[in-house]
Amino acid sequence: MQSFNPPSRILMGPGPSDVAPRVLEALARPTIGHLDPAFVSLMDEIKSLLQYVFQTENRLTIPVSAPGSAGMETCFMNLVQPGDKVLVCINGVFGGRMREVAKRAGGVITSVENEWGEAVDVGAVEKALQQDPDIKFLAFVHAETSTGVRSDARALCNLAKQYDCLCIVDAVTSLAGVELRVDEWGIDAIYSGTQKCLSCVPGISPVSFSERAVELIQAREHLNFSWFLDLKLVMDYWGNGDTKAKRAYHHTAPVNSLYALHESLLMVKEEGLEEAWARHAQHHKALVAGLESLGIKMLVDQDIRLPELNTIAIPEGIDDAAVRTDLLKQFDLEIGAGLGKFAGNAWRIGLMGSACTRSNVDACIAALAAVLNQHGYACDGDAAAVAIENAYSDA
Amino acid sequence: MQSFNPPSRILMGPGPSDVAPRVLEALARPTIGHLDPAFVSLMDEIKSLLQYVFQTENRLTIPVSAPGSAGMETCFMNLVQPGDKVLVCINGVFGGRMREVAKRAGGVITSVENEWGEAVDVGAVEKALQQDPDIKFLAFVHAETSTGVRSDARALCNLAKQYDCLCIVDAVTSLAGVELRVDEWGIDAIYSGTQKCLSCVPGISPVSFSERAVELIQAREHLNFSWFLDLKLVMDYWGNGDTKAKRAYHHTAPVNSLYALHESLLMVKEEGLEEAWARHAQHHKALVAGLESLGIKMLVDQDIRLPELNTIAIPEGIDDAAVRTDLLKQFDLEIGAGLGKFAGNAWRIGLMGSACTRSNVDACIAALAAVLNQHGYACDGDAAAVAIENAYSDA
Repeated sequence: MQSFNPPSRILMGPGPSDVAPRVLEALARPTIGHLDPAFVSLMDEIKSLLQYVFQTENRLTIPVSAPGSAGMETCFMNLVQPGDKVLVCINGVFGGRMREVAKRAGGVITSVENEWGEAVDVGAVEKALQQDPDIKFLAFVHAETSTGVRSDARALCNLAKQYDCLCIVDAVTSLAGVELRVDEWGIDAIYSGTQKCLSCVPGISPVSFSERAVELIQAREHLNFSWFLDLKLVMDYWGNGDTKAKRAYHHTAPVNSLYALHESLLMVKEEGLEEAWARHAQHHKALVAGLESLGIKMLVDQDIRLPELNTIAIPEGIDDAAVRTDLLKQFDLEIGAGLGKFAGNAWRIGLMGSACTRSNVDACIAALAAVLNQHGYACDGDAAAVAIENAYSDA
Repeated sequence: MQSFNPPSRILMGPGPSDVAPRVLEALARPTIGHLDPAFVSLMDEIKSLLQYVFQTENRLTIPVSAPGSAGMETCFMNLVQPGDKVLVCINGVFGGRMREVAKRAGGVITSVENEWGEAVDVGAVEKALQQDPDIKFLAFVHAETSTGVRSDARALCNLAKQYDCLCIVDAVTSLAGVELRVDEWGIDAIYSGTQKCLSCVPGISPVSFSERAVELIQAREHLNFSWFLDLKLVMDYWGNGDTKAKRAYHHTAPVNSLYALHESLLMVKEEGLEEAWARHAQHHKALVAGLESLGIKMLVDQDIRLPELNTIAIPEGIDDAAVRTDLLKQFDLEIGAGLGKFAGNAWRIGLMGSACTRSNVDACIAALAAVLNQHGYACDGDAAAVAIENAYSDA
């Protein structure tokens, strides 16, 4: 066995996305102690930068020391107590995962299910909330990574408020890629991942909790099933707004991954959050122009499409895995397979964070045209390049 | 806010320890996808290297995507079902944590408690096992990070076998630092951390499960409270021995941290595991010679001392925090504070992995002598240097 040297890749799947060189450089700086005064200062900066990208003043805004799924679990394990009623909206894999996690936390689950490729039906959610006044939590996915669909988070949060629920929101794929305003929309608990539109390395999950959610956590009677994710304990290390408070050891923080997160958040701050949203929208438009010029069908309606994750129909008769393998082998290009009900029928093309660039749009369409032609699907890569050029010129 | 440049440090606390430059280099290589064929091959190599450092042929030997505490939770959440009786041995903070985690998993806990600074009392454990034949799990800490004590893991595992229990072992600080033989000793479930004697970045927890443990996990009736740590699901991604099996997405692996883990495991393999144990013992001996020459008292008896974590008494009248701050400010040296009952009375000096070198032994004793003299504790650094030199010459 030898040292691992990863092959060269362009990451245009559902995440991880390409990590910027300066983030990788930050990642590799020498490790220091998790209670070192210099590290505690870094922690405070990370909290403040996370507040910016989440658009919140929530004091409890921290990175969980594990991937997005653990962020999901952090929200449900801390808020839901056995017997609590939870309404879960399901329009893809990650809504389904929310249901599973809420159930394991002891929640009594009702769900509103939508077709794959559709947004959460706000009317159906309102009906469900009307029918059961005991529902305590409304949980939904803002940006469904399995389908590339954006649901109306603002409207769903309004409903939660109206029916006196707390809302729990999955923003794994939305954070820094599309508009997301935690305070303005009244989100109570939200989790994300580092490996999508933040273009950081995978393994960390930013979360944020409203004051109302923090009160509920402080007052909960049933012991959290998880010690590792118990925010009552984690807060002793990360603090809850009081930067002067002494930091008590809970677990050893993933020091280097937090260097990287800090750097990736700085990059968003330097670009500007709204500018980052606009960049995702711009390159998405060009990518769609290229795809449609190749005759490829978008699976999600335009008004609910995620710019950062484009779900497309695999052309009739084309071998899903063989094409993806050829894209990887010939062009070092990773695109995503379909997940769940979309497995075998769809590809997912990510344009996330640092990977959301004109050169990646061009490279992706050119590679796709070349490989599809090899597999017997006739299409014109040159025409697609012109379509892309026109999309950028129109902007 | 600016990019974070960590201060220069020598990490001689209870972990993280200094990460070798080649591990940091590996960490910073470009991120690839968690289902990329090249990454799946890397996963197989990591499993095989972990089998080597754990000295096991257990098929389920993998790195959990979160720190050591999550590894602990992985063991208890997957094995213990509500109502199961668990005997927990407590001789420091981490035994106490085991009790807490086992309780949250639904375990009915009996504990055998020992004084801080003492090893787990094998006789008392046997008595407890005799008294209650329904005890299903015996849990103990091999190397107690809060006290620097090594317990007799082989003898405790023998007891577990004799009384038909499964044993769950905390090897966070022992792995690669002292003798540890999972198969030979008959350990059923074990967890460790990457930031101690592996000298990798913090954030990952290697675990290993015997066939008997895997059967119990496969057969469990009560749904695991944790979705993220549910090995029935995690096995679909990491595989359970069958390297040909298709890997199914569970959560996004912490790709770059796994590059680093692979490299740090390679370093142990290159040095040789027994050679690494011997190196820890050798430098420990020299460190103790230096400390005793300064008149500093070791808090743990020689036969149960961990070479990689040396707990010493803070000299009478010396200000704990002020000395550690001066060591950090003047010498860039981090040593550990006391934890739990030892807080304020003890320091913990780590000699772990890459930080376990002669130059660190020399630097630590020289810095300690200088700062202690500043604080009014008269001691002779030159004499201590001679004592160290003699210890190495005798070896």
